[in-house]
Amino acid sequence: MVRKVDKFNVAVLGSTGLVGQKFVSILGKHPWFEIKYLTATENKVGKKYSEAVQWYVEEPLPENVKDIDLIKNEQLLSNKDLDLVFSALPADVAEKIEPEFLKKGIHVVSNASNLRMESDIPLLNPEVNGDHVLLAKLQFKRGWRGYLLKVPNCTTSIMTLSLKPIIDSYGIREIFVTSLQAVSGAGIHGQSSMSIIGNVVPYIEKEEEKIENESRKILGRVDNSTLSLSDLTVYATSTRVPVLFGHMVSVFAKLKEVPSDVADVEKAMLEFRGNKLKNKELPSKPDMPLVLRKEKDRPQPRLDYSTGNGMSVTVGRIRLDTKSGIIRYVAVGDNISRGAAGNGVLIGELLINSIRRGELD
Amino acid sequence: MVRKVDKFNVAVLGSTGLVGQKFVSILGKHPWFEIKYLTATENKVGKKYSEAVQWYVEEPLPENVKDIDLIKNEQLLSNKDLDLVFSALPADVAEKIEPEFLKKGIHVVSNASNLRMESDIPLLNPEVNGDHVLLAKLQFKRGWRGYLLKVPNCTTSIMTLSLKPIIDSYGIREIFVTSLQAVSGAGIHGQSSMSIIGNVVPYIEKEEEKIENESRKILGRVDNSTLSLSDLTVYATSTRVPVLFGHMVSVFAKLKEVPSDVADVEKAMLEFRGNKLKNKELPSKPDMPLVLRKEKDRPQPRLDYSTGNGMSVTVGRIRLDTKSGIIRYVAVGDNISRGAAGNGVLIGELLINSIRRGELD
Amino acid sequence: MVRKVDKFNVAVLGSTGLVGQKFVSILGKHPWFEIKYLTATENKVGKKYSEAVQWYVEEPLPENVKDIDLIKNEQLLSNKDLDLVFSALPADVAEKIEPEFLKKGIHVVSNASNLRMESDIPLLNPEVNGDHVLLAKLQFKRGWRGYLLKVPNCTTSIMTLSLKPIIDSYGIREIFVTSLQAVSGAGIHGQSSMSIIGNVVPYIEKEEEKIENESRKILGRVDNSTLSLSDLTVYATSTRVPVLFGHMVSVFAKLKEVPSDVADVEKAMLEFRGNKLKNKELPSKPDMPLVLRKEKDRPQPRLDYSTGNGMSVTVGRIRLDTKSGIIRYVAVGDNISRGAAGNGVLIGELLINSIRRGELD
Amino acid sequence: MVRKVDKFNVAVLGSTGLVGQKFVSILGKHPWFEIKYLTATENKVGKKYSEAVQWYVEEPLPENVKDIDLIKNEQLLSNKDLDLVFSALPADVAEKIEPEFLKKGIHVVSNASNLRMESDIPLLNPEVNGDHVLLAKLQFKRGWRGYLLKVPNCTTSIMTLSLKPIIDSYGIREIFVTSLQAVSGAGIHGQSSMSIIGNVVPYIEKEEEKIENESRKILGRVDNSTLSLSDLTVYATSTRVPVLFGHMVSVFAKLKEVPSDVADVEKAMLEFRGNKLKNKELPSKPDMPLVLRKEKDRPQPRLDYSTGNGMSVTVGRIRLDTKSGIIRYVAVGDNISRGAAGNGVLIGELLINSIRRGELD
Repeated sequence: MVRKVDKFNVAVLGSTGLVGQKFVSILGKHPWFEIKYLTATENKVGKKYSEAVQWYVEEPLPENVKDIDLIKNEQLLSNKDLDLVFSALPADVAEKIEPEFLKKGIHVVSNASNLRMESDIPLLNPEVNGDHVLLAKLQFKRGWRGYLLKVPNCTTSIMTLSLKPIIDSYGIREIFVTSLQAVSGAGIHGQSSMSIIGNVVPYIEKEEEKIENESRKILGRVDNSTLSLSDLTVYATSTRVPVLFGHMVSVFAKLKEVPSDVADVEKAMLEFRGNKLKNKELPSKPDMPLVLRKEKDRPQPRLDYSTGNGMSVTVGRIRLDTKSGIIRYVAVGDNISRGAAGNGVLIGELLINSIRRGELD
Repeated sequence: MVRKVDKFNVAVLGSTGLVGQKFVSILGKHPWFEIKYLTATENKVGKKYSEAVQWYVEEPLPENVKDIDLIKNEQLLSNKDLDLVFSALPADVAEKIEPEFLKKGIHVVSNASNLRMESDIPLLNPEVNGDHVLLAKLQFKRGWRGYLLKVPNCTTSIMTLSLKPIIDSYGIREIFVTSLQAVSGAGIHGQSSMSIIGNVVPYIEKEEEKIENESRKILGRVDNSTLSLSDLTVYATSTRVPVLFGHMVSVFAKLKEVPSDVADVEKAMLEFRGNKLKNKELPSKPDMPLVLRKEKDRPQPRLDYSTGNGMSVTVGRIRLDTKSGIIRYVAVGDNISRGAAGNGVLIGELLINSIRRGELD
Repeated sequence: MVRKVDKFNVAVLGSTGLVGQKFVSILGKHPWFEIKYLTATENKVGKKYSEAVQWYVEEPLPENVKDIDLIKNEQLLSNKDLDLVFSALPADVAEKIEPEFLKKGIHVVSNASNLRMESDIPLLNPEVNGDHVLLAKLQFKRGWRGYLLKVPNCTTSIMTLSLKPIIDSYGIREIFVTSLQAVSGAGIHGQSSMSIIGNVVPYIEKEEEKIENESRKILGRVDNSTLSLSDLTVYATSTRVPVLFGHMVSVFAKLKEVPSDVADVEKAMLEFRGNKLKNKELPSKPDMPLVLRKEKDRPQPRLDYSTGNGMSVTVGRIRLDTKSGIIRYVAVGDNISRGAAGNGVLIGELLINSIRRGELD
Repeated sequence: MVRKVDKFNVAVLGSTGLVGQKFVSILGKHPWFEIKYLTATENKVGKKYSEAVQWYVEEPLPENVKDIDLIKNEQLLSNKDLDLVFSALPADVAEKIEPEFLKKGIHVVSNASNLRMESDIPLLNPEVNGDHVLLAKLQFKRGWRGYLLKVPNCTTSIMTLSLKPIIDSYGIREIFVTSLQAVSGAGIHGQSSMSIIGNVVPYIEKEEEKIENESRKILGRVDNSTLSLSDLTVYATSTRVPVLFGHMVSVFAKLKEVPSDVADVEKAMLEFRGNKLKNKELPSKPDMPLVLRKEKDRPQPRLDYSTGNGMSVTVGRIRLDTKSGIIRYVAVGDNISRGAAGNGVLIGELLINSIRRGELD
């Protein structure tokens, strides 16, 4: 249900957290979407957005949203002019309120972790599996009139983008990945300074399970609205490091077919444009989903996370052992943009496009 | 050549760098060794140690070394009362001066990276391969009258200590390791603050090669003074993180035999005492070479690096996949103590003991 | 009311926070005090101390307190064998519960900020104003049978210790102080990493008022149980910096009398022993309350905060303008020890001593 | 000597350091200037700029300079088409080479600290003392045919900008300032990570003298090409904090006349536009030299340093004691832009304008 209009009216749910802020930052100047409403928790309701938010996103707060009054999620349900909501709600809140929007025919692009592994809910990293959007057709069985599209876990989005061209060219049996994740991934107040200054914390709740499971769904196949998970096995260890923005993954992958030279792998990565999105011009799609750095000490989170407006993943230190077929590399992506809100907006654009083309209705 | 005395006279070469400082800190209050001489680079020669050093080691500078005058390495060669030198020299300097000591019958425990892979030079992590000390018998062919014993790469010492009980119990085919290394590993002026504050640098020169090669030597076997490298394959990616002290390794290992339960692995680690050193009471040997933390978010470099006086390695987050035989864990060790000077002193103690027992002469 | 015993039974209220931990760390091995009880907030009650606490203090958790079961503050009120409580409670909780202990004749040494400026409540930095303890005699008017002694604000304790010998020798008209405070001052979860990594936050709630007001009380005079505030004017600006432990103050003071040479000031500081405590041997009193560093770039919080077991304040960069009588210096102290729990224990020792000597009864 | 052209040909001396990079970043897209040449130290000469530079400036490296070959300073002296050089050379190098350019009639805007206090060398912070540019007329006595204009010390530029409207409105007797300076001020390799992670270093070589002396020159008066220093006394203590970009100053100033309300001071700051530059439209002049933040915890270096393209200084926490006439505030500015290269370019623009208007020839 998308109205024939110039701009679609959207709301951001949970707009004052870090992911919410990034949604606001991107949507505040978006060619297709217009922010009409912003929601927040009880104690902020009634305040102007600019007064209630502790703005930590690098871009300045867009002028046109500064004076929007914060409301409760529930207040939005009666609105007739809302096309789509972008949700940065925590899973326990999302679980209850998101279905209410869907029943009313309002589409939801959600960053919340619940329902991500359900077989009728697209879990999208558009350049990797944009075609999975068609799974949403099955959702009518839930009694929903809008579509629910899920944004994957941050590290998983960054990692699967880097894996996709390798899998397409050579296949991968198993992956051993250590993530070095930025504190912004834990939210504005999530990681205390006492715990992380001059330190590494080698544990992030439920992160490893998300990386291992969501990767198999994103890299899986959809045929006739039926999802098959990838046969890839992922072993992950997640750590938190004293970095503000940008998750790094150190990947070791065992290839099915072994290229003769590491240059072949680099070429596959450089030429990767996201076949699932071919011919689809979406405003948030980066020119190059994967950017290669040839310097021996790159990518680095502080220097590379914002590449391609935070939507590209930067890859470096690719090393291939031609005997064993083990390939190693390091990748960095913006955990708040490609890993959350940026990917969410791209998913929203994909949804609009799919509806316009009649692939979804 | 060890004199029958209460205390052995030692010198620290390159005593003002971080590893040199740690040698001074440990040897300054050691029951077997007495610091007689300290060397430094040209521009510090002639100054008192306490005036020339920028003391960054956590323990206070021992009183008894404060007034020692710094001299040049060469000035030591004519000394008759020197039993042993501990060298924290860079490889290019060590290469030239260390053989001069050896020719004169002065033993050298060296942290320099040259010659580490030579088949007649013991590369020692005593609890893992203390028996390799006997390789030193072959050194007479070089025309040396003293023994040269090498301290391994910092990350390698920490990692191989954690691997040893697993290999002994189950065998390991291959390892995928990502290291998160402290800035102290690069020396006092090695890592600029502009490069690392709020950042990760995923490259340390020659580190990965050292980890991959030295592990195979340390975990190899010595029979009749003949060294066989381990058949283990190690794939390493090294990163630098904004941590002061304590290297972390995130290890994925493919076991040859699969235990039925992760508790078996934990038991093997807990009971590990370093069989190669059984019955040998060395002052620097920690009660427990491996310490297990059961909390879900440990070990952490800042909180755990100094465990066991910096000589224990702390292990946590052990996870076993019984189907694939993949075991994962995180380990933290003191890169300056177990990873360099502390291990060096332990090696010195092992040497003295071996000579006393007549295993070396 | 102090029993004639070898060791006094004490409790730590709010024992799992940072200041509480430091109380436990010091009292766990104290010659005069023995920890009998530890209290915590509701959700930790019933757990063993070692299981409930997230231990961030540098010294290891004392063995003899590990198994103490955490209880509620209220549960302590009926105990007959309790001599003294050390309170690390927040002000709003302290306000209600601390008087209950006092009414029952249990002495309270409290780090809470309420009541600090009351004229019958000693606000003690023992080497500076140990004689103010006699103000406590007035407390019987409140219907209390125990004494309440207050620990000053952290920065104030550190600063006034450094000012005392200067005031005694030359007098000070006014002070302009900028503090650079460690994140530990905000508690374990107080300062989020997003707010402070690579940043400075130039505001700490109510801190400047505390520094300005409490300094005048601590540096004031007590005659015949009557307090006169100091005529010193203090202008403070407080900032938070990404440092774990150790508050720094950058002080500019306008002297009443001008010494002829900066060496005179240094001598006054070096010879300062805390005249108010002369001949009183208290276990926590540092040999030198003030330690001078002559290097041009000291004191530094990370290198100097723990001097004198965290009870000395380290001073450096003393510069005197003999024309204007402006003296400038930098001082660093341990905000958790001298600034809170260490000072609290020293105050407890002073109380015991005063009672033993019959100065208080 | 400025040619009648669309764009003036400029060179950046010492172009690979941090200040050099910032010059390149600004001049690479400047409406008046065109980078023709870039110089570097011996070991980088012959390489392309993009290959030799370790780019740490936040903006991307301008495309049009990537392929410029680095040359030696001396190679530039024979160039006929050079109008102006921007120098980021260290003082000892600048001292020798800058006069050579001046003798040949090439103007020099120099960030080097030598000659800054000379009475015929303008030391410029344009909104504060743009009229001082006329001092350059005296330089013909040195036998120079070009003009030498000096960029002040970084902290001094930031601080004097914030002081100017207060001095103009009320006068200031003396200032007590503590600076909290970013590591970028020490250059790419200047501050080691071992020295500053989790720490503060309360000393920066020669910084306090520069702040104290240069302030008096910048805030002084020029009448008939004669400079009178300001009678202001500045007492400074400089510290280095683990911040990447943005110097903070904590200022206490004693006013000559006391406003009735802090709002008057805020108004003076807000309305300040730099009277010395009135009616002069210079591309690098920020709309508002001073930006006020009313939040209680601003300005913060990480969040505010880049305000006004790094050319505005952000002020906050203004507190006035109407009895004593003491005003306190905190200010933050971009040490690389307003504090060095940005100010340098603004000075270059001022020079061109002064020549065009016939004030200089």
